[in-house]
Amino acid sequence: MVVRSEESIKPIPIEDAEQAFIQPLITRFDGALNIELRRISIKPGGRIPAHLHPEIEHVQYVLKGRYLVKIGQEIHEVKPGDAILIPPNTVHYYENNGDEEAVFLCTIPRKEYTTVTL
Amino acid sequence: MVVRSEESIKPIPIEDAEQAFIQPLITRFDGALNIELRRISIKPGGRIPAHLHPEIEHVQYVLKGRYLVKIGQEIHEVKPGDAILIPPNTVHYYENNGDEEAVFLCTIPRKEYTTVTL
Repeated sequence: MVVRSEESIKPIPIEDAEQAFIQPLITRFDGALNIELRRISIKPGGRIPAHLHPEIEHVQYVLKGRYLVKIGQEIHEVKPGDAILIPPNTVHYYENNGDEEAVFLCTIPRKEYTTVTL
Repeated sequence: MVVRSEESIKPIPIEDAEQAFIQPLITRFDGALNIELRRISIKPGGRIPAHLHPEIEHVQYVLKGRYLVKIGQEIHEVKPGDAILIPPNTVHYYENNGDEEAVFLCTIPRKEYTTVTL
């Protein structure tokens, strides 16, 4: 069992991204069996460039801000309360062109996976 | 791919609970491969009684309010930004003894599972 405040987890800069950070909230190292939970934040003007993961999907939930997420060929402006499913092997990127920090939760299955940056 | 507002999903009363509701945000019917995402809300004075799921764990994130969650033998008062892991086969219950609606996200692995109410 784990009960943990997000404030206790230091944000780590995301590789190849600009002004984007990840906080691992619940991971395999906590004994998570199937699901890992991360909090992602992107400052205004920040972005996470186009990439894909052949092996895993993302299930996400928007907490703060409005930002653009491109999934495959579609671009969406998302807002707090939006739920998002990004299938495996699908190119996606994030761009915060708003004035407010963008924050979302991102869950992934507990699996080994690779990232292909495009 | 799915992008969906939580406002588009009608809250369903949770069986055996009081003033507690579930909104399935991303499910197996959307093509979710490994992870299902639900939004749970409990009105002030509401509760979800003690139960367990032998087969599955929960990974949760608190969105609003302060409420009690008992996991095994421990009782925690949780608040927005807290992340929670409830292992399989572990008794848990929720009680909103605050003045504000309690809201949390609850992810589960995509598996067949049973619920044992105690």
